Amino acid sequence: MRRKAANHHEDAAAGGARRPAAHGAPQGPDGGGAGADTAVAAAVTACLREFFAERSADVRAADTAEFADEVVRRLADFTLTGGKRLRPAFAWWGWRAAGGAAGGPRARAALRAAAALELLHACALVQDDVMDGSALRRGRPALHAALAREHAERGWAGRAGRYGESVAVLAGDLALAWAEDLFTEAAAGLGAGRRARAPWRHVRTELIAGQFLDLRAQASGDTAPATALRVDRLKTAAYSVERPLHLGAALAGADDGLVRALRGYGTAIGTAFQLRDDLLGVYGDPAATGKPVGDDIREGKPTLLWSAGLRRARERGGAAERTLRTASGDPALTPSGVRGLGALLEDLGARAEVESRIARLLRTGLAHIADTPMPGPARAALRALAAQAAARTA
Amino acid sequence: MRRKAANHHEDAAAGGARRPAAHGAPQGPDGGGAGADTAVAAAVTACLREFFAERSADVRAADTAEFADEVVRRLADFTLTGGKRLRPAFAWWGWRAAGGAAGGPRARAALRAAAALELLHACALVQDDVMDGSALRRGRPALHAALAREHAERGWAGRAGRYGESVAVLAGDLALAWAEDLFTEAAAGLGAGRRARAPWRHVRTELIAGQFLDLRAQASGDTAPATALRVDRLKTAAYSVERPLHLGAALAGADDGLVRALRGYGTAIGTAFQLRDDLLGVYGDPAATGKPVGDDIREGKPTLLWSAGLRRARERGGAAERTLRTASGDPALTPSGVRGLGALLEDLGARAEVESRIARLLRTGLAHIADTPMPGPARAALRALAAQAAARTA
Repeated sequence: MRRKAANHHEDAAAGGARRPAAHGAPQGPDGGGAGADTAVAAAVTACLREFFAERSADVRAADTAEFADEVVRRLADFTLTGGKRLRPAFAWWGWRAAGGAAGGPRARAALRAAAALELLHACALVQDDVMDGSALRRGRPALHAALAREHAERGWAGRAGRYGESVAVLAGDLALAWAEDLFTEAAAGLGAGRRARAPWRHVRTELIAGQFLDLRAQASGDTAPATALRVDRLKTAAYSVERPLHLGAALAGADDGLVRALRGYGTAIGTAFQLRDDLLGVYGDPAATGKPVGDDIREGKPTLLWSAGLRRARERGGAAERTLRTASGDPALTPSGVRGLGALLEDLGARAEVESRIARLLRTGLAHIADTPMPGPARAALRALAAQAAARTA
Repeated sequence: MRRKAANHHEDAAAGGARRPAAHGAPQGPDGGGAGADTAVAAAVTACLREFFAERSADVRAADTAEFADEVVRRLADFTLTGGKRLRPAFAWWGWRAAGGAAGGPRARAALRAAAALELLHACALVQDDVMDGSALRRGRPALHAALAREHAERGWAGRAGRYGESVAVLAGDLALAWAEDLFTEAAAGLGAGRRARAPWRHVRTELIAGQFLDLRAQASGDTAPATALRVDRLKTAAYSVERPLHLGAALAGADDGLVRALRGYGTAIGTAFQLRDDLLGVYGDPAATGKPVGDDIREGKPTLLWSAGLRRARERGGAAERTLRTASGDPALTPSGVRGLGALLEDLGARAEVESRIARLLRTGLAHIADTPMPGPARAALRALAAQAAARTA
């Protein structure tokens, strides 16, 4: 879900942030595999908990107790208590699709490598909140806001806001560096250091490039649909779905055909996921999604829904285009204003255009894995994840 | 040199930033080794140039031309044109001390791994400038300032300053992620992925922890000498000298005795380097150091020089303590005010205390490598680097 301008996708609805959700666990008849298949999210969280315990001990031993207490602890808390582990789930199912073991030491190493994606994601979220000036994350104060409050409460010198932002950037750097450690060590343990390096390299560059293009599009007022799609491809389709699958498959030594199929599925399903998110941002139920409607419009984000609406309004002529242009980027837009704009976008046919694109993407994604040989539980899980991505209401 | 509050050590004097300095090349009779020994800095820069060329092509192929033009190009320019390659030089001499080859493909891989330290350093400098709000770096606009100017010149929406800072943080993230790639791939090529991982893990955590402790000490007004020494140990001694040596030695498969000796040398020499920097910050010639005197005082940095002065002033009684306390953190302090404070610190015996500590550290550092077996060129280079660190005037 595009929460706010430039925010990375936060896959946890605020209300569900503390649920140990078994995201990615297939509920169908094939789903009852051994090992982590039925509880990927919980297994990933366990890996992260173990990793933080190891590292916190290291940090304390290095005579940096304040760092352990005020930065590492906050980062651990942030990483351990939020999120549905969407990216590790896709990595896991990429691993399983390529014949990776469901249990045992190799499965454990694969889970640790997958968990590294969650640390990478923590970096993205913490630093995005700084860039956006978002005070809240997962229903709690954002990391920089909590640090700024601590600064103010202690009556320290200098600007509390600047201190909070600086330390949050450092916490993000730490998450990124530790993601590298967790991934590199786990991949080496699988003898997959070389073959898994390419998708790992791509996922980080694409993450950073996507965030940059998003910031740039907002700054430059670029509302072209092509730009919106490019940002979505990098920030959601590639970063959240395609590359995690690719990574998991590479860890298991998948052949080129399977990697191609999974990446094809990932691009389509990841894009559908983002488009559904755009729709929920306007038509969703805040009680279910955990966020107010209309944030994208207030922030002037060039979602496909909006771009399609603008194009259609221009083609039709009349006042609609002006209505849309006036609303875009208006921070004072009310919920009822958003509902009115939603109705206008629907009337223009933009909502239907996005729905039909989602349906097409779902078909395309499923076609990519339809005839590709893979274990039953993996296929069932990927189908379930695809349906969920395309049709979810929260 | 502690340029400004919370800034990482920038080992290039502004005036010499574009010199392809052969830092670390021993000039003594043992120095004329084959391969990179006589031009470590130039060899490291060549590795970085090659790496950026590879990656820029990747980024362009990924349909992110704006990212290549506006972020990658700037980061490459920043990394390639500045710095004396101090950290890679120590890594190189750690490698050579442990018997690593001076030339050939293994030397090339070692140089690439060492060059990763320079990318890590680029991350630290670019993000530090954001945290400090420093407009200049290496005599040119800091990365965030250049980006903000571009935003303003293009008449983009939103705050130019915030845009520049956000994109600079992303550029730092990219430098960090690419440092990981460069290091991990080079170390794997040497079959040293496992044994070189520990120092690599430490150098990044220590870098981030040191920066945090520095920000925290300033915010909390912690002027305890113990804190200043701890920050120096992490930000300079460990990050710039000890860990690079350790890393280079680990790449070559050094035994524990050699690693211990090099780390002992590194801690002592790195601390001496920082203390010399503190002295140059008050007593140095701006024409030689490339920076104004007194920045540490203006920023209220708890250098050892300052802490020792405060302690001695307190012991002595009278007006000196009050003079020091009033000056600390005063942004309006003039150069002649700094000269007056320098004279006071000298009169109090603080300058001599720091000088004598530097001399002791130099002896300690050299003692660590005096009887440790290592190739002649490495010993000569480490001696030359130690003398330079302790006695330099720029």
